[in-house]
Amino acid sequence: MKRKPLSEDSILRKILASCRASPSGGRVSPSIALCIGDDAALFRPKPGYETVLTCDWFLEGTHFLRDKHPPDSVGWKCLARAVSDVAAMGGTPKCFLLSLALPASLTGRWFDDFLVGLRRASRKFQCALAGGDTTRRDEVLINVTVIGEVKAGRAVFRSGAQAGDVIYVSGRLGEAELGLQVLKRSKRLASRNDPLTRKHLYPEPRIALGQWLAKNRLASSMMDLSDGLSSDLPRLCAASSVGARLEIAKIPRVRIPKYASSQQTDSTRLALHGGDDYELLFSLPPHKLHLVPARFRGVPLTSIGIITGKRELVILDESGSKRQLVASGWDPFRERSPRLATRSPDNCSI
Amino acid sequence: MKRKPLSEDSILRKILASCRASPSGGRVSPSIALCIGDDAALFRPKPGYETVLTCDWFLEGTHFLRDKHPPDSVGWKCLARAVSDVAAMGGTPKCFLLSLALPASLTGRWFDDFLVGLRRASRKFQCALAGGDTTRRDEVLINVTVIGEVKAGRAVFRSGAQAGDVIYVSGRLGEAELGLQVLKRSKRLASRNDPLTRKHLYPEPRIALGQWLAKNRLASSMMDLSDGLSSDLPRLCAASSVGARLEIAKIPRVRIPKYASSQQTDSTRLALHGGDDYELLFSLPPHKLHLVPARFRGVPLTSIGIITGKRELVILDESGSKRQLVASGWDPFRERSPRLATRSPDNCSI
Repeated sequence: MKRKPLSEDSILRKILASCRASPSGGRVSPSIALCIGDDAALFRPKPGYETVLTCDWFLEGTHFLRDKHPPDSVGWKCLARAVSDVAAMGGTPKCFLLSLALPASLTGRWFDDFLVGLRRASRKFQCALAGGDTTRRDEVLINVTVIGEVKAGRAVFRSGAQAGDVIYVSGRLGEAELGLQVLKRSKRLASRNDPLTRKHLYPEPRIALGQWLAKNRLASSMMDLSDGLSSDLPRLCAASSVGARLEIAKIPRVRIPKYASSQQTDSTRLALHGGDDYELLFSLPPHKLHLVPARFRGVPLTSIGIITGKRELVILDESGSKRQLVASGWDPFRERSPRLATRSPDNCSI
Repeated sequence: MKRKPLSEDSILRKILASCRASPSGGRVSPSIALCIGDDAALFRPKPGYETVLTCDWFLEGTHFLRDKHPPDSVGWKCLARAVSDVAAMGGTPKCFLLSLALPASLTGRWFDDFLVGLRRASRKFQCALAGGDTTRRDEVLINVTVIGEVKAGRAVFRSGAQAGDVIYVSGRLGEAELGLQVLKRSKRLASRNDPLTRKHLYPEPRIALGQWLAKNRLASSMMDLSDGLSSDLPRLCAASSVGARLEIAKIPRVRIPKYASSQQTDSTRLALHGGDDYELLFSLPPHKLHLVPARFRGVPLTSIGIITGKRELVILDESGSKRQLVASGWDPFRERSPRLATRSPDNCSI
C-alpha cells in the first residue's frame, strides 16, 4: 500500500525521534546543550580542546544511486564520510547537523530506512544529531556538518610531513572501489550482507586510530583516503612541500575473489586509484617507527614508501623500475558526465 | 567572449583568495586555527563561551531563481540567512563552512559575482570562511554552516516566553515579501540598487540587537522571522507552551509606494505572512520594558502583543474584534510545486 507523503512536521518529528535515542540509548551527549528545535544548536566545548569542523555533500546521482544504494547505506555513509575528516585530524566526533532535501514520494519507507542507517552510524561513531534543515526537492540532496574536538595543539595536519618520514596506510586499499564496480554491474539494490560491497556501502572511519596517532604525537602528517591514493598523496605532499617514493609491492590491496573479477578489476589499479576507502594515510618520523604496531585494533598498518625532499611523486614497481605517479583525480568540473563515475567522483574539500 | 569552465582547483583557489581577505582586510579571525586546505577546519573556542551551530539550504529554484536573483545577492543571502539563526540565539557569528555545487557553465562571471556578494557578507558579519566542499551539479546548490559563540548561559531560546511577557519585533515586516513580488513581476535580473527589492536580496541579520538582548538578559525568548510572523510566532509559542494575543494595528509593516502596489500587495497580509525578513521576534518580561528603547541603532523595536497562558493564538483587528491567527506556513512537502512560492517557501529548521 502506498503511503501518503509525510508533512514537514512529521519528517522533523521522525528525525527528532531518531536523534533522541542517539548516540547512546536515550541520552544525548552532555556536550550538546540544546538538541534541535531552536534556531541553532549549542555545543559546549571542553576546556583545553579545539573544535574540529567539516562538511560533506552526499548527492543522489553524484555520490549514490537511488536504484543501487540501499537507503540505510545512504544514511550511514553520509555521516561516515564527514566523520572520517574529523578522524583524519586526530579528532573525536561529537555531533552533527543534517541538511536533507527529499522528494515527497520518498518520505515513507525510503526515509524510514535512511534514518535506520543514520542512527546506526550516529551510535557507532558516538556522534549525536544536533540540528539541521529540511526541504523538498526532486532528488535527494544531503549535506552533513560534523563537529568534533581535539586537545589543543594535538590535531594532525596534512602539512607536517618531512623528508625521511615513512608513509603508512591503514587497512587494504581498493576495497570500496571493487564494491562500487560490483554494485554497478548488479541489476538491483545491493544487499547489506554482501562482503564485496560492504566497504563501499558502510565505510568505517578510523576514529580510534586517528585519535591514538594524534594523542601520542606519532604521525607528522595525516589525511583520509577519500579520492584514492594517487589523488590524495599528492595533496598531502603539496601541503607539506615534499615529495614521495612509493613501493608498489608494499601497498596493501583488495583481495578479489575469482567470481568478482573482470577486466576492470586489477587490484593494483584499484589500490592506487580507487576512492571511498576512508582509510588513513599518514607519515611517521623514523625514530617513532618502533612505536607503531603491525595492526591497530585488528586493522593492518602498512608502510608503503618514504617522504622525500624532492618535490616529485615516484613509484617503484615490482621490477624496481621507477615511474612518475600520475594523479588520476576526478575533476567534477572537467568530466562530461556529472554522474557517479566508476572511480568515485568525489567532491573536493576546500 | 565565453570563458572555459574553471577546473575544480581553480574554483578552490578563487574561494581561498576570497577567504584570505575576509573578514577584516587580510586577517583571518584569530579563533580559526587553520583556515581551509586540510580535512577539516579548527576553531578555537573562547573559554567560558558556548559554540552556536546552524546550517541552511539555499537552492536554485527553491530559494532563488537564476534569472531573477543577481549572483552577488545569492552569495550575500546564503550567508546572511544562516548568520540570522546565530543572531536569534544572541550569538556572535565567527566562521562558516560553504558547500557549493555548481554547473560548469557558471564557473566564470556568475561565480565571480557570487564571491563578491559572499565576501561582502563575510566582512559585514565578521564571519570568516573556514572550509567547505565543492562539486559539480546541473543546478546551483548551496549549504552554509555558521559557527558562532555566546557566553555560557546567555543564549536566548524559543522556549523561555511566559504569560504576561510583551511580544516585540524589530524592523518593519513584509518588506522582503514585497521585494519578492516586485522581483517576480519584473522580466529581468533585479537591480542591486532598487530599494524595493533590497531587503529581499540583501537581508541584514540583527546581530547587534540579538547580542544586546542576550548580554543584558532582556529577552525571555527569541527567534528570527524567516517564514513570516504567522508561521514563526506559533513555533515560539509551542516551544514555550504558551499562547499569544497580537494587536494587528501595532504590527510595524512595509510601506508600499503607489507604483509598486497590486492586488496582492496588502501591507497587513505581507506583514503577517511574508517571509525572509530576518527581523527578530522576542518576548520581554514586563519589568524590563523600560530598558528597551524605541529604536536600537536605527532599527525600530515595536511591541505588537502579549504572551498569554492559554494555548491559543489570537489576533485583535483594528475594530477590536478577535480572531484566531491562522499559521500560513509553507510546507514544501505538501505544496504541488516545489518552486519559489510568492510567500517564501522556506525550509524548516530541525
